[in-house]
Amino acid sequence: MLRMVPLPVPGRIWTALALALLPTPALAETLIDNVNGISMERDGRVKRFAAMVIDDNGRIVDTYAKRNQAPSKVDYRVDGRGRTVIPGLIDAHAHVMGIGLGLLSLDLSDTRSLAEAQAKIAEYAAKYPDRAWIVGRGWNQELWGLGRFPTAAELDAVVADRPVWLRRVDGHAGWANSAALRTGNVTAATADPAGGRIERLAGSKAPSGVLVDAAMDLVARHVPAPRAEDRDLALHEAQQLLLANGITAVTDMGTSVDDWMTFRRAGDEGRLRLRIISYADSVPSMLLIGGGGPTVWLYDDRLRLNGVKLYLDGALGSRGAWLKAPYADAPKENGLQLLGGTQLRNLMSRAAMDRFQVAVHAIGDAANAEVLDAIDELSQTYQGDRRWRIEHAQVFDPADIPRLARHGTIASMQPVHQTSDRTMAEARLGPGRLAGAYAWKSVLATGAPLAFGSDAPVEAPNPFAGLAAAISRTDAAGEPFGGWQPQEAISREAALAAYTAGAAYAGFADGRFGRLVAGERADFVVLDRDPLLASPEDMRGIRVLETWIGGAQVYAADAATGGEERTITR
Amino acid sequence: MLRMVPLPVPGRIWTALALALLPTPALAETLIDNVNGISMERDGRVKRFAAMVIDDNGRIVDTYAKRNQAPSKVDYRVDGRGRTVIPGLIDAHAHVMGIGLGLLSLDLSDTRSLAEAQAKIAEYAAKYPDRAWIVGRGWNQELWGLGRFPTAAELDAVVADRPVWLRRVDGHAGWANSAALRTGNVTAATADPAGGRIERLAGSKAPSGVLVDAAMDLVARHVPAPRAEDRDLALHEAQQLLLANGITAVTDMGTSVDDWMTFRRAGDEGRLRLRIISYADSVPSMLLIGGGGPTVWLYDDRLRLNGVKLYLDGALGSRGAWLKAPYADAPKENGLQLLGGTQLRNLMSRAAMDRFQVAVHAIGDAANAEVLDAIDELSQTYQGDRRWRIEHAQVFDPADIPRLARHGTIASMQPVHQTSDRTMAEARLGPGRLAGAYAWKSVLATGAPLAFGSDAPVEAPNPFAGLAAAISRTDAAGEPFGGWQPQEAISREAALAAYTAGAAYAGFADGRFGRLVAGERADFVVLDRDPLLASPEDMRGIRVLETWIGGAQVYAADAATGGEERTITR
Repeated sequence: MLRMVPLPVPGRIWTALALALLPTPALAETLIDNVNGISMERDGRVKRFAAMVIDDNGRIVDTYAKRNQAPSKVDYRVDGRGRTVIPGLIDAHAHVMGIGLGLLSLDLSDTRSLAEAQAKIAEYAAKYPDRAWIVGRGWNQELWGLGRFPTAAELDAVVADRPVWLRRVDGHAGWANSAALRTGNVTAATADPAGGRIERLAGSKAPSGVLVDAAMDLVARHVPAPRAEDRDLALHEAQQLLLANGITAVTDMGTSVDDWMTFRRAGDEGRLRLRIISYADSVPSMLLIGGGGPTVWLYDDRLRLNGVKLYLDGALGSRGAWLKAPYADAPKENGLQLLGGTQLRNLMSRAAMDRFQVAVHAIGDAANAEVLDAIDELSQTYQGDRRWRIEHAQVFDPADIPRLARHGTIASMQPVHQTSDRTMAEARLGPGRLAGAYAWKSVLATGAPLAFGSDAPVEAPNPFAGLAAAISRTDAAGEPFGGWQPQEAISREAALAAYTAGAAYAGFADGRFGRLVAGERADFVVLDRDPLLASPEDMRGIRVLETWIGGAQVYAADAATGGEERTITR
Repeated sequence: MLRMVPLPVPGRIWTALALALLPTPALAETLIDNVNGISMERDGRVKRFAAMVIDDNGRIVDTYAKRNQAPSKVDYRVDGRGRTVIPGLIDAHAHVMGIGLGLLSLDLSDTRSLAEAQAKIAEYAAKYPDRAWIVGRGWNQELWGLGRFPTAAELDAVVADRPVWLRRVDGHAGWANSAALRTGNVTAATADPAGGRIERLAGSKAPSGVLVDAAMDLVARHVPAPRAEDRDLALHEAQQLLLANGITAVTDMGTSVDDWMTFRRAGDEGRLRLRIISYADSVPSMLLIGGGGPTVWLYDDRLRLNGVKLYLDGALGSRGAWLKAPYADAPKENGLQLLGGTQLRNLMSRAAMDRFQVAVHAIGDAANAEVLDAIDELSQTYQGDRRWRIEHAQVFDPADIPRLARHGTIASMQPVHQTSDRTMAEARLGPGRLAGAYAWKSVLATGAPLAFGSDAPVEAPNPFAGLAAAISRTDAAGEPFGGWQPQEAISREAALAAYTAGAAYAGFADGRFGRLVAGERADFVVLDRDPLLASPEDMRGIRVLETWIGGAQVYAADAATGGEERTITR
């Protein structure tokens, strides 16, 4: 039968024709008018605007410094009433399914004493009598002023009939009751696994109930996996929470294949509203998901696998962070090196050879130096725009900080950790090693890219708490007066940039979203005050009124109450 | 800022508005005119048409019995010059990645003697000196007239320097050389694993080189997995081959998570042209991919996970098929039952409880009876439109055939197997058990749904060879004269229906594709003659001139040569 002439390749020209048949869309434009608009450059330079036009694909047509510069002929006009509009916040380091599953499980992060925690656990166990396991997270013996880890016996006192497994706030330690220890067959005879430690009762080999890092798996592997329905619900809950916090994109640090499938189900079924920048939890997961390289951007820039997240050490609180010199409060311990030097380089190579991006968890100064060494070596082979990432980059030997800039290595840091860790960090590191700790200002000074995140569910995802910490080095109570190591505080502009454009750059999303400029997605947040004029206390108190992604409103604070009457004019 | 009133839920109305903004597409229509069009009902009723109109979404607007009934005002008109147009063929049982990887590996299916095979293996090994393993498939000692399985020594004679692993044509046995047996540590001391058999040298415990069913894994698990790039290339090759055969949709029976990821990469990157109806290779794979149920139809009806494929027994050639009475040519053997009765029911329940579809591989009469028993039991709990599938349904106790219709159980059969297996089946079953073998006509007579496929790469995917076998019970040489068990031959119409509408129904795709009727996807094939008027020999010789999927031409036989001059009129 007929073919169109000339026919280079069957099908192709037909497709071309099909495209030609598509009617040119009448560009329906919406004017977001009368706003106190703020757009950030990566380096913190600010561009203010009073109006913005969005096309019907949810992309920004342009922004206008003065209202009268905006086009008058648009299809829709929305009056912003002078409210503050900033780019949607991008969390550069979080655990999406961890947030969601956490919301479905027992949360101890607000407990201030062991007794309070025990009461909450007992109440939860009573509320869910037919759950085979009681699983939870968020405890922090530091906040309890316990001066030691809690014990299995202290859990048995409230729940003895079934296993209880509770992760520490930093996810690097787990607290088990005796039933859980039995299930994991953890006894006095069990040796510490490589990269992990079984806490023992004083003057005995008997396990005390807390398992650190690699030892956690002894019990954790017996915890029943959540069903698909739970995972879908958890993702929904996580999205709700993040959107309510003004977060329009999140970086998922350590995506399992199960997590990825959950994200895809949501995308396939139109339930994915948040943007997710994903890093696989292992090289095998990365290869299974991505195949020969990172995935394309899926669902209108809502999901992409960029590469892999590797763990080089543990956390400071559980003394898992790998330090150059021993812990000040444990002179025999240097922390845990979870990957050997060759292992680390081989894994980074395997990813880089197929242009996957590499993000390495490094908290201690030895771990950070080791990653920088590895990047120096690998950069000789794997050139071009690689955007090596160090996650947390928490404690540096000050001499190492300038090395970040050498290959444009991204420091992906979480400001709130500084305020939560302050006293613990002083105990672990002693006075001599605080200069390079949570050193945002020093990192910026080297010209290295900075990206901010929350590490949720380790911390609450509220970005304004992070911004307040970043500019003041003080906690929610304003402590310590004048700020902790205040020389490392940064400007409001630099902090907001690290939480928007900087986080987008760190995830290869620049040009797609992260800034309110022509051509990027219209992801923005409406606030009740201007963060660039806010005191630290004001910053913490900022309320998110509305969250918009791709030109569509996905959250409104007053939706529940009905809120003020509004009108749209055409 | 403004919200539109009334606003039920934030975002929703905005989305509604965004939709409202979309311009109504000018329906660009294409008239496929002057064709000998054939549309099939599932039961084989035929509707002829002379013209068909397709909209610019690639769906059929309508078909017209007479050319002058077709609308004159269309955007494009394609003159079919009276050629025959049939619905795109749908293969109800194949292994997509097996086809593709097979095309990249050593293919012995055309060898007619052991010596010929040995020569081809030696040639391939010489051609790929740096492949660590020589991997291939397609051998069949029956075609070689060997009267026994080949041996490791016969492989060592041509390749001794590295492992060689060659799957039998039916995939139920593997032929290893000594290096491969060493790698798998298969020795005289190795016991037969459950569900498998290690062939031994006569009068000895020493392995002869052939491993059957579950025993295959002893060596197979050491074969290096193909890299993602190989898998992407393999999928491309498989698509090319199937489209050239007039196949527009294929049922992938036993999709691994790796396979699924390969399909998704192709879909995400716009490389998926063929439609794939997928059944996971295990319940865990099914749950990982689908979560709480089958996936939605992805990529404009090009991919969906329907459910799971389970293996109840092996194959006839390797005496793995589970028979009620012993093998005629092995009086001590009844074949292999790969799943216990409770196991089978538990796996079927796990799938059915979340509305996943279940397809069970059953070849022997005992296996088929067992699946029918399980379906009878499960149907009491899992009601509604379940479309239980039996894959192969090859050898029935004639008394069991009527039970298929009771719950609308689908018989998914491969006509070409009958012609390939004929003499082997007579040897294995003896004269007494042939009445219920490959009994298409008897299945149809019960009113049970019938779906046809090729089982490629076990057989070539050419559907016209299958249609010829279905109507004649003779092979490519026309043997045996008058047909084997000719009472089971079926009509041209019923055979074509089983390869189109019947296969679509078996995959829950009815209403989307499989028939040339208003509202379904315009998937069709242009042939050089009319299959409903063709002799068996003519049927086998039918040439596919063009293949169209969703209104786009994806294959043209004369594309290479440039072919006849064609014009399109607007």
